[in-house]
Amino acid sequence: MSKHKISPFAPAKFPVLPPIAGFEMATAEAGVKYEGRTDLWVLRGQAGTQVAGVFTQNLCPGAAIDWSRKALGVEADGPRLVIVNSGNANVFAGQKSRDAVVESAQGAADVFGAQAESVFLASTGVIGEALEASKLTAKYPQMKAALKADDWEAAARAIMTTDTYAKGASTSLMIDGQKVTINGIAKGSGMIAPDMATMLAFVATDANIAQDVLQALLAVQTQTTFNAITVDSDTSTSDTLLLLASGAAGHTQITDIDDPRLTDFKAALHDVLFDLAMQIIKDGEGITKFVTIKVGGAVSNISAKRVGMSIANSPLVKTAIAGEDANWGRIVMAVGKAGEPAERDKLSIWMGPHLLAQKGQKNENYTEDDGAAYMKNDEIEIKVDLGLGDGASTVYTCDLTHGYIDINADYRS
Amino acid sequence: MSKHKISPFAPAKFPVLPPIAGFEMATAEAGVKYEGRTDLWVLRGQAGTQVAGVFTQNLCPGAAIDWSRKALGVEADGPRLVIVNSGNANVFAGQKSRDAVVESAQGAADVFGAQAESVFLASTGVIGEALEASKLTAKYPQMKAALKADDWEAAARAIMTTDTYAKGASTSLMIDGQKVTINGIAKGSGMIAPDMATMLAFVATDANIAQDVLQALLAVQTQTTFNAITVDSDTSTSDTLLLLASGAAGHTQITDIDDPRLTDFKAALHDVLFDLAMQIIKDGEGITKFVTIKVGGAVSNISAKRVGMSIANSPLVKTAIAGEDANWGRIVMAVGKAGEPAERDKLSIWMGPHLLAQKGQKNENYTEDDGAAYMKNDEIEIKVDLGLGDGASTVYTCDLTHGYIDINADYRS
Repeated sequence: MSKHKISPFAPAKFPVLPPIAGFEMATAEAGVKYEGRTDLWVLRGQAGTQVAGVFTQNLCPGAAIDWSRKALGVEADGPRLVIVNSGNANVFAGQKSRDAVVESAQGAADVFGAQAESVFLASTGVIGEALEASKLTAKYPQMKAALKADDWEAAARAIMTTDTYAKGASTSLMIDGQKVTINGIAKGSGMIAPDMATMLAFVATDANIAQDVLQALLAVQTQTTFNAITVDSDTSTSDTLLLLASGAAGHTQITDIDDPRLTDFKAALHDVLFDLAMQIIKDGEGITKFVTIKVGGAVSNISAKRVGMSIANSPLVKTAIAGEDANWGRIVMAVGKAGEPAERDKLSIWMGPHLLAQKGQKNENYTEDDGAAYMKNDEIEIKVDLGLGDGASTVYTCDLTHGYIDINADYRS
Repeated sequence: MSKHKISPFAPAKFPVLPPIAGFEMATAEAGVKYEGRTDLWVLRGQAGTQVAGVFTQNLCPGAAIDWSRKALGVEADGPRLVIVNSGNANVFAGQKSRDAVVESAQGAADVFGAQAESVFLASTGVIGEALEASKLTAKYPQMKAALKADDWEAAARAIMTTDTYAKGASTSLMIDGQKVTINGIAKGSGMIAPDMATMLAFVATDANIAQDVLQALLAVQTQTTFNAITVDSDTSTSDTLLLLASGAAGHTQITDIDDPRLTDFKAALHDVLFDLAMQIIKDGEGITKFVTIKVGGAVSNISAKRVGMSIANSPLVKTAIAGEDANWGRIVMAVGKAGEPAERDKLSIWMGPHLLAQKGQKNENYTEDDGAAYMKNDEIEIKVDLGLGDGASTVYTCDLTHGYIDINADYRS
């Protein structure tokens, strides 16, 4: 889909995502912007489907975000719909954006049989121009006729923008002797750019779980998955993560987050969310190195995460990794600029198995040759111990390369 | 000095910096790291010289920062010294770094006749290795013999690292009928990188001003000069700005910040600080565009500055500018991710004279051709009105280019 070089971390093929009871879907070529590819996806969950969602923290969000936030609060009797288009993010076009959202949702509600206010919308693509909702609504009737249970790969392709591969994940587990499946799809591929890329992810399951429990699970698990990744520190106006549960698996509804039947579900859901989040990083714009940053010894987990993000977002750290330079001086700098409690003379730093510096000075046994050899790996692990407390966090990022500049500086040329 | 392409904004020549009564200086080739160039500068202010300083906010600072912060609090009877070396930042080498600082300061005190605890030190260059102080102290005797009043250009060259040109500024004014001069030199040229570049600036004047007044002036004026610039959002472990006043100009001492005799001095000092700060940005690593970002209509000046910095540090905004793309969608994104009060539907954005978007939507009279033509300029001005209040701030930055990646990814190769 992208004109850019395919990520070296692209999987050989899209994983198998089986049908999930209670869901149907369809894709179409609505011609929003792209030619010769699909750009519209409809997901319909059966009546009673519960939905949880988290949205961008950006204070200038797209019109679809405003709409979907409200939809999250609607207790719908009938089916739940998710309508996603690529090619136009429908952001910052004033009343026209808001009108497009109403038209898209109402049109979908009429065709697919749902309550308009309960329809979820997500849009990604160029901004500053209103989405022509008629392009979407014109396709709804044929999409309704084409609804089927297992078209997940087509769905993952329809929502792509600068992504160089389609992203999907699936797992299953047992609840009360019933098999439960969890599927997810996502797109990246800069952390964002409002006119190019935005993080969207949609996860569906046939588990029977109450909305408030689903929402609590999603809020917690987002912290260690989608909120633990960064490509370029930029936050989209349209980021959306939805979790839909049809309840079709047949077990009785889980209404308590401490219900022991959730133990396996929690782990399985985390697997899917984490897998999708890692796929987004591994398709980060211009990536040549996948980077894991583990921060320990902080005064709190939140403090550790802020330090980790300061390292992950430092252009100087990211360019050093691109240059295969075990430049721990830049890591010291990034720790210090985070503004979190840190003491130079308690700081230790590892690159993979190599202890580079401890307690404020270079490890005498470390050699530059060791570091140089390690940095040739495709996957790099940086570990930092602040030596202050028990706070820990892990974040994931990619390097900053000429490829990133190519993609983002030459976009319109 | 740098192996990299000279900035397109480099001035034709170094400005004239006249001698300033009460100051002498010398440079030397100490061989800290570089060969065939100077890397050491000594500035001596006469007895009674008052000094103000601001230092990096990085919580993992270099040993010289710790030392100089203390020196700022010393009321010295004799001369004041500033010793600056390039080639080694003396950061993160534990006790060896601390020993090197003591040896450098004590050696200078012995040779140049000052109190060791009152000596200011600044180091920039590679990190993780202790500075060999003996390389500095060995040069002090010959430097003492060579002290002279006007060697500012040589000084500016001695403190350079990845800078592609030497940076200096000078102005003069009258206080009580006496001519007063202000000279300054600085180095960049990434906002920082602990092993490559660090922001250092030294400003000297013969004005007679009490230390607390000097310090207050510097603290205020740093906000709109050195703290209003960013190359890459990374904060050095060694940033240092010192302002020295010898008092040799002959007027009686100014001891009150509201003294009307300071009016012209304040403006002149701001001119010098601002000039140096702009020279640092215009030598930002890989720069092809100089960018001014004016934010107005914020709820406060601080809020406006945070929004400005969010725009200035956004990799997606910076790459769009490099690509000559009037991509206001990325500016909306950067406003929204700043976390400061902002309302999408009150936001207006200009590029130079062109109003691109107002009150949450594209200006119908704006054409992409207007934007494309404007973006070909070397100097770009972005203006954002948040439409909420009277808070305003201006920040300065450069674009993010392949040149930045070259310099920072290929440094050790």
